[in-house]
Amino acid sequence: MKRIAVLITDLFEDVEYAEPAEAFRKAGHAVVTVSLTKGTTVTGKTLHSKVHIDQAVKDVAVGDYDALFIPGGYSPDKLRVDPAAVEFVRSFVSSGKPVLGICHAAQLLISARVLQGRRTTGYVSIIQDIKNAGAEFVDAEVVEDGNLLFSRNPKDISAFVRASLRKLKE
Amino acid sequence: MKRIAVLITDLFEDVEYAEPAEAFRKAGHAVVTVSLTKGTTVTGKTLHSKVHIDQAVKDVAVGDYDALFIPGGYSPDKLRVDPAAVEFVRSFVSSGKPVLGICHAAQLLISARVLQGRRTTGYVSIIQDIKNAGAEFVDAEVVEDGNLLFSRNPKDISAFVRASLRKLKE
Repeated sequence: MKRIAVLITDLFEDVEYAEPAEAFRKAGHAVVTVSLTKGTTVTGKTLHSKVHIDQAVKDVAVGDYDALFIPGGYSPDKLRVDPAAVEFVRSFVSSGKPVLGICHAAQLLISARVLQGRRTTGYVSIIQDIKNAGAEFVDAEVVEDGNLLFSRNPKDISAFVRASLRKLKE
Repeated sequence: MKRIAVLITDLFEDVEYAEPAEAFRKAGHAVVTVSLTKGTTVTGKTLHSKVHIDQAVKDVAVGDYDALFIPGGYSPDKLRVDPAAVEFVRSFVSSGKPVLGICHAAQLLISARVLQGRRTTGYVSIIQDIKNAGAEFVDAEVVEDGNLLFSRNPKDISAFVRASLRKLKE
């Protein structure tokens, strides 16, 4: 059993949270939602699903978790303005522990300035941003580079979940 | 009287369209809304206001307009995946005609790869993207550099409108 921090806020892409989170829990992992404020509820952008927030990002540390999962939608755009959220992502990437992201998730890694020289993928709208951050953009359903495991969009979710579950076993 | 193309789609920041568009019309300018599909209606992200679309971006040319205005919100993120929208922005910047943008508008200029060596501003979430695109980010309510005139967020709208109206008179 691994402890997975999910960094999420309003306007997340509903299925990009719900399907991986369910699969991680079914596989026996603990999923802990982390956002700007503890005890609130955040709302998805498409299906308007609600997610309860377990922890505030300012109160958590990389040492408390085995992996980080960042769903997409516009949640990463809203989180990247928060210095604690960006620092949490930076620390996680540096730790070598798995960082699993999909869609717009790479925006947080861009703000954390940890993509230089890495290979990754993301939603089509942020391809130029990924390249400008010094990363090699790869157009594939799952792109792994060291501890980073990223996918492009909701169509990649099945492959993302399979690859993530394998990575969590390593 | 100048003809101003407004590049806009769903999830635009309502006030960032409504207030400048009203001021431009009051000053005697023609405001033409341009999006992915002609004759549709797009919806704002905060107030859910509706905007009728006059022209499809694939059918317009820089020569038809005297200036380009790009409101913010998540509209630029949705438009930057469309090659015709990105090419329209690229051509406008190259033309030397005024390009007026606010909030996330610079995302379209990043995808158009026209920010290298320019000075500009934008919403706090995209500061690193603007820097990575080779631009100098300036934290001011209005930043002008040649034909580019940009502002950061809804609080800057009054200053943005004043500076834009002056620029349209040049």
